[in-house]
Amino acid sequence: MSDQSFRTERDTFGELQVPADRYWGAQTQRSLQNFDIGGPSQRLPPPLIKAFGVVKKAASIVNISYGLDSKIGEAIQKAADDVISGKLMDHFPLVVFQTGSGTQTNMNVNEVISNRAIELLGGELGSKKPVHPNDHVNMSQSSNDTFPTAMHVAAVTEISHSLLPALTELRDALNEKVQSFSHIIKIGRTHLQDATPLTLGQEFSGYVQQIDNGIARAKDVLPRLSFLAQGGTAVGTGLNTKKNFDVKIAAEISKITGLNFQTAPNKFEALACHDALAEAHGALNVIACSLMKIANDIRFLGSGPRCGFGELILPENEPGSSIMPGKVNPTQCEAVTMVAAQVMGNQTTVSIASASGHFELNVFKPVIIMNVLQSIRLLSDASRSFTKNCVIGIQANEKRINHLLNESLMLATILNSHLGYDNVAKCAKKAHKEGTTLKEATVALGFLTPDEFDEKVRPELMLYPDDE
Amino acid sequence: MSDQSFRTERDTFGELQVPADRYWGAQTQRSLQNFDIGGPSQRLPPPLIKAFGVVKKAASIVNISYGLDSKIGEAIQKAADDVISGKLMDHFPLVVFQTGSGTQTNMNVNEVISNRAIELLGGELGSKKPVHPNDHVNMSQSSNDTFPTAMHVAAVTEISHSLLPALTELRDALNEKVQSFSHIIKIGRTHLQDATPLTLGQEFSGYVQQIDNGIARAKDVLPRLSFLAQGGTAVGTGLNTKKNFDVKIAAEISKITGLNFQTAPNKFEALACHDALAEAHGALNVIACSLMKIANDIRFLGSGPRCGFGELILPENEPGSSIMPGKVNPTQCEAVTMVAAQVMGNQTTVSIASASGHFELNVFKPVIIMNVLQSIRLLSDASRSFTKNCVIGIQANEKRINHLLNESLMLATILNSHLGYDNVAKCAKKAHKEGTTLKEATVALGFLTPDEFDEKVRPELMLYPDDE
Amino acid sequence: MSDQSFRTERDTFGELQVPADRYWGAQTQRSLQNFDIGGPSQRLPPPLIKAFGVVKKAASIVNISYGLDSKIGEAIQKAADDVISGKLMDHFPLVVFQTGSGTQTNMNVNEVISNRAIELLGGELGSKKPVHPNDHVNMSQSSNDTFPTAMHVAAVTEISHSLLPALTELRDALNEKVQSFSHIIKIGRTHLQDATPLTLGQEFSGYVQQIDNGIARAKDVLPRLSFLAQGGTAVGTGLNTKKNFDVKIAAEISKITGLNFQTAPNKFEALACHDALAEAHGALNVIACSLMKIANDIRFLGSGPRCGFGELILPENEPGSSIMPGKVNPTQCEAVTMVAAQVMGNQTTVSIASASGHFELNVFKPVIIMNVLQSIRLLSDASRSFTKNCVIGIQANEKRINHLLNESLMLATILNSHLGYDNVAKCAKKAHKEGTTLKEATVALGFLTPDEFDEKVRPELMLYPDDE
Amino acid sequence: MSDQSFRTERDTFGELQVPADRYWGAQTQRSLQNFDIGGPSQRLPPPLIKAFGVVKKAASIVNISYGLDSKIGEAIQKAADDVISGKLMDHFPLVVFQTGSGTQTNMNVNEVISNRAIELLGGELGSKKPVHPNDHVNMSQSSNDTFPTAMHVAAVTEISHSLLPALTELRDALNEKVQSFSHIIKIGRTHLQDATPLTLGQEFSGYVQQIDNGIARAKDVLPRLSFLAQGGTAVGTGLNTKKNFDVKIAAEISKITGLNFQTAPNKFEALACHDALAEAHGALNVIACSLMKIANDIRFLGSGPRCGFGELILPENEPGSSIMPGKVNPTQCEAVTMVAAQVMGNQTTVSIASASGHFELNVFKPVIIMNVLQSIRLLSDASRSFTKNCVIGIQANEKRINHLLNESLMLATILNSHLGYDNVAKCAKKAHKEGTTLKEATVALGFLTPDEFDEKVRPELMLYPDDE
Repeated sequence: MSDQSFRTERDTFGELQVPADRYWGAQTQRSLQNFDIGGPSQRLPPPLIKAFGVVKKAASIVNISYGLDSKIGEAIQKAADDVISGKLMDHFPLVVFQTGSGTQTNMNVNEVISNRAIELLGGELGSKKPVHPNDHVNMSQSSNDTFPTAMHVAAVTEISHSLLPALTELRDALNEKVQSFSHIIKIGRTHLQDATPLTLGQEFSGYVQQIDNGIARAKDVLPRLSFLAQGGTAVGTGLNTKKNFDVKIAAEISKITGLNFQTAPNKFEALACHDALAEAHGALNVIACSLMKIANDIRFLGSGPRCGFGELILPENEPGSSIMPGKVNPTQCEAVTMVAAQVMGNQTTVSIASASGHFELNVFKPVIIMNVLQSIRLLSDASRSFTKNCVIGIQANEKRINHLLNESLMLATILNSHLGYDNVAKCAKKAHKEGTTLKEATVALGFLTPDEFDEKVRPELMLYPDDE
Repeated sequence: MSDQSFRTERDTFGELQVPADRYWGAQTQRSLQNFDIGGPSQRLPPPLIKAFGVVKKAASIVNISYGLDSKIGEAIQKAADDVISGKLMDHFPLVVFQTGSGTQTNMNVNEVISNRAIELLGGELGSKKPVHPNDHVNMSQSSNDTFPTAMHVAAVTEISHSLLPALTELRDALNEKVQSFSHIIKIGRTHLQDATPLTLGQEFSGYVQQIDNGIARAKDVLPRLSFLAQGGTAVGTGLNTKKNFDVKIAAEISKITGLNFQTAPNKFEALACHDALAEAHGALNVIACSLMKIANDIRFLGSGPRCGFGELILPENEPGSSIMPGKVNPTQCEAVTMVAAQVMGNQTTVSIASASGHFELNVFKPVIIMNVLQSIRLLSDASRSFTKNCVIGIQANEKRINHLLNESLMLATILNSHLGYDNVAKCAKKAHKEGTTLKEATVALGFLTPDEFDEKVRPELMLYPDDE
Repeated sequence: MSDQSFRTERDTFGELQVPADRYWGAQTQRSLQNFDIGGPSQRLPPPLIKAFGVVKKAASIVNISYGLDSKIGEAIQKAADDVISGKLMDHFPLVVFQTGSGTQTNMNVNEVISNRAIELLGGELGSKKPVHPNDHVNMSQSSNDTFPTAMHVAAVTEISHSLLPALTELRDALNEKVQSFSHIIKIGRTHLQDATPLTLGQEFSGYVQQIDNGIARAKDVLPRLSFLAQGGTAVGTGLNTKKNFDVKIAAEISKITGLNFQTAPNKFEALACHDALAEAHGALNVIACSLMKIANDIRFLGSGPRCGFGELILPENEPGSSIMPGKVNPTQCEAVTMVAAQVMGNQTTVSIASASGHFELNVFKPVIIMNVLQSIRLLSDASRSFTKNCVIGIQANEKRINHLLNESLMLATILNSHLGYDNVAKCAKKAHKEGTTLKEATVALGFLTPDEFDEKVRPELMLYPDDE
Repeated sequence: MSDQSFRTERDTFGELQVPADRYWGAQTQRSLQNFDIGGPSQRLPPPLIKAFGVVKKAASIVNISYGLDSKIGEAIQKAADDVISGKLMDHFPLVVFQTGSGTQTNMNVNEVISNRAIELLGGELGSKKPVHPNDHVNMSQSSNDTFPTAMHVAAVTEISHSLLPALTELRDALNEKVQSFSHIIKIGRTHLQDATPLTLGQEFSGYVQQIDNGIARAKDVLPRLSFLAQGGTAVGTGLNTKKNFDVKIAAEISKITGLNFQTAPNKFEALACHDALAEAHGALNVIACSLMKIANDIRFLGSGPRCGFGELILPENEPGSSIMPGKVNPTQCEAVTMVAAQVMGNQTTVSIASASGHFELNVFKPVIIMNVLQSIRLLSDASRSFTKNCVIGIQANEKRINHLLNESLMLATILNSHLGYDNVAKCAKKAHKEGTTLKEATVALGFLTPDEFDEKVRPELMLYPDDE
């Protein structure tokens, strides 16, 4: 590369060459060199960077009210808007595995916003004039309170705008099946063994309840996630910030995001541990468990086409076997269950990381937020993909369902009150031994005529408790 | 053993000899023989057995209202009371690793209550008359709805009566330290490095906030845990039970326990998955993370006596080194952190088990409830032990704290406004290089007299945000 | 209780009353009171206590060679033999959640052996004469090297004498099925969908390979587990022990146990971390994964009797549904999969605990060894139970297997070379659409006569690669 | 975009537009659209894609020996070389969360190689002539055996070429410290409390042992990882491949990679489970635990500069506090411990995924290999970064170390043989009470002169066992 493609930036450590077409400065460049761990796929995720934009914008607004030059402050806000919109995403190259406070990412944000603001004001990149990354962009802040604030803002935003809508779509698609499958009576299965019947709609209603609960669980973690560390500065005391800065910035962040945030009731806790994110991931983990169960059921119920349960017909989205009609691999279920496994592992990471703070600071911040945001993203995307490419297209194989129901000997229980337990057992044993249906055996033993059997053995009577 | 020490019990599989001094019957005995896994330490925990007593008592009350002979019903209730009180605990020998629906434990309960009720009514053990384990004790129930009901009753009970009080004790003990340590200014530490000061009370206030949140988290899982599967019977439809049996038994269980339970809104979900318990364990997991952080901090702050941080003096509960005064091993912290590690592992077990249900039934029920109850018990016991044997006895080593604070160069920041950044840096560098205090260096460089230094460098001004 | 049921024991902390019928002394009693966490089910497991007996016996033998009075030394050995045999197990009441070095359990062992040896020599319990718990039983040792030595001895012993035989039994039982099922051709299933055929013996051969590998994995961890910390004393330097004590005691322990142990090449590592046990648990974890897969397959293949895969007939060990012949709950599989979930969670606990040592000592020792020994025990017991109560009794439902194979359309692939791809696809599509067999469709379309079909469509040709 | 930027590709499902500058075909494009989960950061990692290149090249070589047209075969090999070199990486856009067999990635590879080979032969992209993705590139293969083969090839390659060298570098750097710190005697710490002394070299020798073991652990998993599934085709029987294809392709892959591979002894196991990768991750997990311990020790020993342990001086790589000389945040340690937490969570994911196969196929393949490769990469990169940016620059703060050693009262134990236990205890208690050194107290009590004290209290005598 030619000389022109770099410019010199400096920090207290000295000078460094940075790519001329990037807004970042010396500290970002230094981190890039010192933390060559994992490569681009391990960069801090965009929602965190955007949340940082929100925090810096809000800080600037509040700082103006405390005396920051409004020309500088407004330039910061404009630059921050470019961070929020995502259009500067290529200027945030740092990976998760850096300093555990995320200081280097905070500095990356400060440097990018400062240089972008300098540019907007006609200054020279790297001059730190008139907008200084520390003195102006980071004013009244510390990495130690800014990073956790961005963590919470990002998590609340992604849960609200990505996960909750995606789960709601899935829930609605499943619920549509509850309605359309409400008339289909099928064999129940417990211990994987034939059991008393239920409707396919009832079976799906369990899934709906799981997702409904998942939605509620995701909402229930928002209150503690909405508490922001900002204003605690380096150790939680708020040194070098102003009284009420914390309350005001939480209000500004709420205004910018349209979401509800408050200042944390105790800033020492807010810097030193990330229990709120561990709690949030606990909810994500349960949602993963729910999806695992649902996707497993659906793929087993769709197994076949000839040699499986075969009760559901899943949509075919890609070539399976060209010669084998009806062999539809449950690929969406597979993606969902892989996502669930990933999220369940992330739970372990988040727990360990969250438990491992010391004294005034937890220094596992980047790995915590990366895992939380990854889990949210994967659960959201997988829910949407599953809904669109699988759930809405699921059809009941009514013929097969009905066949199995009639094959089953479980309907025998309904005959107890008519024929007595011992006789019913005789019929069932004969059918089991001879591989016939219960009806055939019962008729063969002379207990009932075919018509009588059909009249008495009505599975639709087995779907509810008895009247009182 | 002589013949007399056994009696014959039978089930549909045939006859079995059971110890004459035990109330259990053939199915329990058969499970004992078929599931020789883990030994007595793996038995299902007492709170679950007691919860089963509650469920059976409540069922009997409701069943009388639906027509169960009240003489039989009342004998069942008396026998159930003996289960609830714990005095029959030796009659529940079954281990966790049995059938995954817990059917065998349900039958163990049915058999014990039936035999005990028979005894109360003057009948013969094993005769199943006049109180039949299935027809009467298990009336209107299935293992599939009874076991999950007992799981929820046990979890809610233990959280309410064991965990919440224990956490509250710990919280109060920590909060007492917040008060008594509020005047002690100490060095802060971020990245384990010296940072700006805070009070020891502020530091402990973070712990209080963590436990306060832990209490809130434990309470927040109660609503979904309070939903009971009872009334769903085998597959969730409620077949073979009566309309409203579910609502009535939830009301009876609430009355018996004095805790708030409702019938589950969807019984299919309540049998087929255990998301509510996975959610509950998520809260336990966060509490474990919090305790890990707090116990780690306390043992590090208490490290020494000469070569560690040494800011806290921990109570000495057992002989450490006889010759080494002041060498107090932080054994309570060690127990707490081991509990935390156990609970964090249980989280993985519960997640896997909860995600692994199929169709109408999750068959990991015993291992789920065992882990949940173990985590509750360990967190409760450890919190109580930690409170009593460590937290309440913690003393601040004020001399050491003060010495470190004055040793630190971090106080230099307060001089910036007086001497300017460059001069302050000179003082700090000189002190660092020569191993002197900041005061010594500042005076030696002629910037301030000792009195001026003391007047200006007042850490008590560094504990809060500036006034607006 | 009356005064007589207690005696007074003392340590440097003072006097304490201990139960008169117990050999333990003051430090054990103190731990009991200070660590009331988890109750008896959380006691350190018997294999660890027995291993401690081995260590103390070996130490005594070596100590005699370095000058310990042989009368005292031999009494210690006799007392240690009583610990090894398990007959003193009631004298070890301490729980896992104590001091993280296990010091209190080491003292429990020292106290019990000292008092028992005193008794053997006609002395007075609690007098510490002529056999002193510290000076004689703990001679040349520290808790810090004794406890990890006992951990390794216990783990190696249990893997060797419990896990490996149990896995070998299971492997042999599965392999017997490979032989007896070698002639049974069945439909394969990938993505849960019908796939090309294999023999049931081939399918089971995969399970055999998994267990064979599991056996190899368990053996592969023995070398590093066989390294003993003994001789490192308090911090790894070996202070207060004699040169070569480490080598000699490893040799004695090998002799006593009949297993192969060596002194650890680096004692600092051996005290400060438990990577070897984390590694060992990694192998247990894989074995758990293998068992999960195998047990899941078997219970799904045994699902039915009418509405599942139904290819296997599992032995019936307990009453299922009395009226439903053939409804056999796969309870052994359920126990196995619950064990697997437990072990997979223990993996998380062991990892966290093993990673959390500081400086010269890891203080999560008791929780690590408890989890390792629990996993070994559960895997061993579950393998034995599964073998005996399930695997050896598994029968193939050949009629069903054959029916499904012929139902399947997957056999069509074999016709490609005869009829060409396009014609085969026509046949398969027709069969799929009309719900007929491939044979019926092929004959109906006039491509082949029934006899030609039978001659050409021979699944036994689909079980191997083509000849070169 | 204009029409020209796309071309039409087709599969059995129909036509699709793909970007004209990409080699992928219809099935890749379809997967991109159907699995919009996680975005580019969730793409399958490059080492897997490169391993696929190796597999396809080797298959082509073997296929030529079985009759594949050598012109086609050689074009495939050239195209595969471009995959191996990484220069076609932009042509592999598929994410982990797709079909669980990785079929779509196998097709992506087939399509890219086919189109690139077509190009090399002067054909038209998308024409499938003369090189067909299925008939030629995938000849004798199935996704079900190709994907697991690529998994193993990738894992073995990355362990061999990335992890082992990185760990060796770290080991050597630590070992260099063992040598250079061998003369520095320091206080030991157990339970975080002052303990008997050791040398700083001895302390570091424990770390060296951990990494040496880690290297051995990583090597020990290679034998089972080196078994390749290739030749099992769809269900493990090898249908549609040739006898000895499996052996020959393993030999070719060994030749291409220069690493040692064999055909798997049982192909059913090799497709249906991923125990070998779970085992491999178990080793990675232990390495993570080791790194966690080492990095924690180093950052605590480097804590300060004034108010921590302060025994180590860590290299300063980036600006810490500009005004605070000596405040060096242990950022490399923080990155390492975050990596450890990530790997420990990945362990949970891999375990769950590996345990969750069904019948003839495990369909969690992509998530398993992604986690394994991520763990390898992170451990490798973090080890290298830690070595280069931290370990090699660590200096001992000898002044501080010596000060603490002399401050400590633990040296008192050495006086027992001179003054007797009781007198020593008096000295220690006086020193503890008055905050003086042991020497001061001993002299003040008149037991020794200063010179006598110095002569007798020589910590260098406390570093080894006594001579026999």
